[in-house]
Amino acid sequence: MNRQELIAQIRRKRSYLCVGLDTSIDKIPPHLLEGDQPVLTFNKAIIDATRDYAVAYKINTAFYEAQGIEGWEIMEATLKHIPADCFTIADAKRGDIGNTSEQYAKTFFETYPYDSVTVAPYMGKDSVAPFLKSKDKWTIVLGLTSNEGSRDFQFLPVSDNELLYEKVLKTVASWGTPDNLMFVTGATRTEQLAHIRSILPDHFLLVPGVGAQGGDVASVSKAALNKDCGLLINASRAVIYAGNGADFAEKARMAAQELQEAMALYL
Amino acid sequence: MNRQELIAQIRRKRSYLCVGLDTSIDKIPPHLLEGDQPVLTFNKAIIDATRDYAVAYKINTAFYEAQGIEGWEIMEATLKHIPADCFTIADAKRGDIGNTSEQYAKTFFETYPYDSVTVAPYMGKDSVAPFLKSKDKWTIVLGLTSNEGSRDFQFLPVSDNELLYEKVLKTVASWGTPDNLMFVTGATRTEQLAHIRSILPDHFLLVPGVGAQGGDVASVSKAALNKDCGLLINASRAVIYAGNGADFAEKARMAAQELQEAMALYL
Repeated sequence: MNRQELIAQIRRKRSYLCVGLDTSIDKIPPHLLEGDQPVLTFNKAIIDATRDYAVAYKINTAFYEAQGIEGWEIMEATLKHIPADCFTIADAKRGDIGNTSEQYAKTFFETYPYDSVTVAPYMGKDSVAPFLKSKDKWTIVLGLTSNEGSRDFQFLPVSDNELLYEKVLKTVASWGTPDNLMFVTGATRTEQLAHIRSILPDHFLLVPGVGAQGGDVASVSKAALNKDCGLLINASRAVIYAGNGADFAEKARMAAQELQEAMALYL
Repeated sequence: MNRQELIAQIRRKRSYLCVGLDTSIDKIPPHLLEGDQPVLTFNKAIIDATRDYAVAYKINTAFYEAQGIEGWEIMEATLKHIPADCFTIADAKRGDIGNTSEQYAKTFFETYPYDSVTVAPYMGKDSVAPFLKSKDKWTIVLGLTSNEGSRDFQFLPVSDNELLYEKVLKTVASWGTPDNLMFVTGATRTEQLAHIRSILPDHFLLVPGVGAQGGDVASVSKAALNKDCGLLINASRAVIYAGNGADFAEKARMAAQELQEAMALYL
């Protein structure tokens, strides 16, 4: 999916909601466990319930990998179930030397035809570059993450008035364009989001952490929207586990709609 | 595998060679392509040929993931074929927020019972900690990598007289012990290896890049051996692609033996 198609979808749905499918078999409604592949049943129901309000789906690969082969089968079937007009993200946090990143790019752009994959920056340019070669595919590089551990290294001062995450944002931005690069920028640091927007006026930012990790649609939107929207706000647990009974999909739909309506105010 | 078992194996085989199974279907001997699962046939032959000289095998997960389900099946069968006395490494470069790293730890310690997994440090303590919880399992964190891109961020000065990779080594070391933590430290920077050893006198270091990436057994060993050996030197392409004909396994055996004999001089 290219940038124009993504922006058109955002305007059409009046939403920049990304639903995170971090689906754990321990957390889905108990009644689903009686059937075959309950995680897939759950994911399909969540996608069907939220597709009018979400412009993107983010599949957290760890939750599928942990189930072995069956997990990858469920991941693939989930990916196929996502409507063609939605942007798909493999939240895989990959990154290695060049010949290995090429294999990861093949994994998430060809073997499994996602629109994008998340990538860790520590190994530098040749670990990111192979992901940037595919037309209409996106590399989403970790800039500032929303977890407690982000304080360990990302906020280290690396030069006069520059922190490591700022250096990462600026340096990685020079390796691609706003048409093939996005950045993960954590919502629990809204005070930094406006600053990040000033560093990267044009790039899309993937903001995790709304809901379970404590972020907030209004503050994120005020801080970081740009003229093309330029935001994907992810909600995982707050949407997919909104209910745990027979009406779990309806509860998820309501949670997604509530977020979409909050976003529509800013578009 | 615990530290004592690893050290005992190193003394027994007089080797600290790790063979990297970065197996690409494009690079294996053409005659193998006629059979079923040629990558698995290749890996088994390489393991059988090198097991007397190697103390560890490192499976680069990217090369298997890129093949989808069949790749994971081959990876699992390869892992099962590795002799029980050898140390196994999932070279997966994972790392995410805590609940997600828990899933990756499950993937590589339970679903696929590796002894260790490589982990990227950018997201900090809660992204690494879940890997450190399993008894006799190891977390191998990226310190200094051997690729060109390591210069982009790892050498940034983060405080007076301290570079980012040094800060990462020291900080991550405080989260675990030499019994459950190792570090990836690139062999193309032998001038830094002695320095790293002075920072981390007791930890095992996994040194990639001997052979195709230009490192050298003698210089690495002189710089970084400690009283318990404390080194695993990885060779991937230089061993597994030593030959490309009917005698590929014999050529790999000879390459592994040559490295082992070079190592025996230092033990």
